[in-house]
Amino acid sequence: MKQSSIRLADGRELLYFDEADDRVRAAVDQRDLPSPPAPTQLRLDPLTDEWVAIASSRQGRPLLPPTSECPLCPSKPGHLTEIPADDYDVVVFENRFPSFSSSAALGAMGAAETDGYPQTRPGVGRCEVVCFTPEHDSSFGRLGPARVRTVLGALAQRTAELGELPGVEQVFCFENRGVEIGVTMHHPHGQIYAYPYVTPRTKLYLAAAHRHRERTGRNLYADVLAAEVASGERVIASNEHWTAFVPAAARWPFEVHLAPNRQVADLTGLTESERDAAAQLWLAVVRAFDSLFDGTDRASGGSREHSPAMPYIAAWHQAPVRADRDLAYLHLQIFSIRRAPGKLKYLAGSESAMGAFVNDVPPEEAAAALRAVIKI
Amino acid sequence: MKQSSIRLADGRELLYFDEADDRVRAAVDQRDLPSPPAPTQLRLDPLTDEWVAIASSRQGRPLLPPTSECPLCPSKPGHLTEIPADDYDVVVFENRFPSFSSSAALGAMGAAETDGYPQTRPGVGRCEVVCFTPEHDSSFGRLGPARVRTVLGALAQRTAELGELPGVEQVFCFENRGVEIGVTMHHPHGQIYAYPYVTPRTKLYLAAAHRHRERTGRNLYADVLAAEVASGERVIASNEHWTAFVPAAARWPFEVHLAPNRQVADLTGLTESERDAAAQLWLAVVRAFDSLFDGTDRASGGSREHSPAMPYIAAWHQAPVRADRDLAYLHLQIFSIRRAPGKLKYLAGSESAMGAFVNDVPPEEAAAALRAVIKI
Repeated sequence: MKQSSIRLADGRELLYFDEADDRVRAAVDQRDLPSPPAPTQLRLDPLTDEWVAIASSRQGRPLLPPTSECPLCPSKPGHLTEIPADDYDVVVFENRFPSFSSSAALGAMGAAETDGYPQTRPGVGRCEVVCFTPEHDSSFGRLGPARVRTVLGALAQRTAELGELPGVEQVFCFENRGVEIGVTMHHPHGQIYAYPYVTPRTKLYLAAAHRHRERTGRNLYADVLAAEVASGERVIASNEHWTAFVPAAARWPFEVHLAPNRQVADLTGLTESERDAAAQLWLAVVRAFDSLFDGTDRASGGSREHSPAMPYIAAWHQAPVRADRDLAYLHLQIFSIRRAPGKLKYLAGSESAMGAFVNDVPPEEAAAALRAVIKI
Repeated sequence: MKQSSIRLADGRELLYFDEADDRVRAAVDQRDLPSPPAPTQLRLDPLTDEWVAIASSRQGRPLLPPTSECPLCPSKPGHLTEIPADDYDVVVFENRFPSFSSSAALGAMGAAETDGYPQTRPGVGRCEVVCFTPEHDSSFGRLGPARVRTVLGALAQRTAELGELPGVEQVFCFENRGVEIGVTMHHPHGQIYAYPYVTPRTKLYLAAAHRHRERTGRNLYADVLAAEVASGERVIASNEHWTAFVPAAARWPFEVHLAPNRQVADLTGLTESERDAAAQLWLAVVRAFDSLFDGTDRASGGSREHSPAMPYIAAWHQAPVRADRDLAYLHLQIFSIRRAPGKLKYLAGSESAMGAFVNDVPPEEAAAALRAVIKI
């Protein structure tokens, strides 16, 4: 894998991850771009002790532009995009409408106010877009295994590099897929958020892991994985290095964890053969999601449905950059809000206001359905 | 307000809350109903120490039935509904597809497994539906103040009564409004969940409130309210007993807290005049939400939008039944996922997987927009 870096017209960084070692990336961004938007601000919600990013500049970001205006396609004459080259394998670049950015440290909203109410601080960090393929109408599930491996390598490289940035405490690599999830671009892509704090969910994980270690001396996630493997009831696939299972207390109608068979803090800690094995299983699980309601959903129609593609979020849970690297346990969580053909799971009052989840699909049934369609 | 109770054909309880003291409720449910569905099961997610309800019976619940088949309308010849009477003011009844139920204590999934993995326990509790009006095409915002007062009285009565049920630890009264939020019935209604545990969000609130009291000796929410009132920047309306404000670190594009001016644990603790004042302001805030994008949204169309009505969740945060009644502070949180005409805020990767919120609408702008349309 060859990596090269350029700057876009407004100063943002773009990195090419090429599968051929001899690719030369000389194309220049010829657009006339405005300056990056005003930085964001973090505010502390004292009722929960959690930071919330206030990012008004994102209101203006494009929403589902037509294919002819897709900013994630390669550039061609008459259609200059975020990617100056006329072709690419995998490309990563700084989001033009970021929730966190390095310019925040210098911005007008940048002064930290730690007294008074509300407590604020600059939205320091970085948000990146990861284009999986130049083919606009493709999807993650239709990539080849080699390309998924390139994506994984790019995410590991970004995790390492973003973790070095001042103020970054956690790196989160994810894919939002489907308009039902809120994607604003159809072009197959993922994202990376480098947060200036440890996220609320990770803090919760680590607190439980800490209590478990105090009590047992063992790693919590490793114990959960061992219990799932021992039961086997919800395991949907595995290979030499990884296990894919539906967690016993899944919150989402279809939810899979893909975990390495040994404790690793984040993607940077994986060996080459673990990365190969991860790519294989990641692709297989996404393809299983895609084929779950294949054919049945288009027919079902229904006004709440927008597209026949299976909506999902694929989320790499990684250790914080600087803390609890032995407590955390790398895993990929893939979950869908589609609970049946034509039916979505919504986060309504109980989930959104109380954090109390009700899952209509028993995890054992979800596992059986996924096991029936997964191909390894 | 007169209250009367009957049993539906399958044994579920239904309560009429009538504004006239002389209403007699003799109508009998003449439907032939199947037995209540199998009880739900709670499973402990060890990674977060949170309970998740597994409720497979809910998969079969009706989804947006046509008006002619609405189960929340009054019964009439040829259309027997959940409400046997041919008219009503406010009606509360046990949900036919509950996430928690008293039958769980006796059910097949009912044995508690506190050893091994996963830990499970019966989904004991109760879920109720609250019909605000017999008029199918109305909405909360179109109710009169007297009806909102009746709804509030019913919620207070239910909070008291459900809190007495064995195993119930917290009572949550809420309204999901709009298909974008996931309502399955258009008829104006709210819901009540009587949980057999303190919800994750409330636990988080209480932990922060506890730390604040240790540090300052004061009530956290009272201090936040005082700071919002002192600043005034985000206050949108107030009356003798209540204040409505957008919290400084709002997570949602449009989010309002409606809080009493003194610490009260839950709805049962409000005086009569506090209830009158709450009803007035609750109605005014919902009407302000409804008129926020009035007229502009229908024109905008857009494939992600389903209806011009403002989607929102209205959530009464109450103290646990048995614990921390002095730490908690009753308030109504009303929030919308509509961030602009034709644009919704989705809970995608950052929010759903990491719990890290990014809000595109500065709270001060949201407050100004709401202040401009609210009518007291």
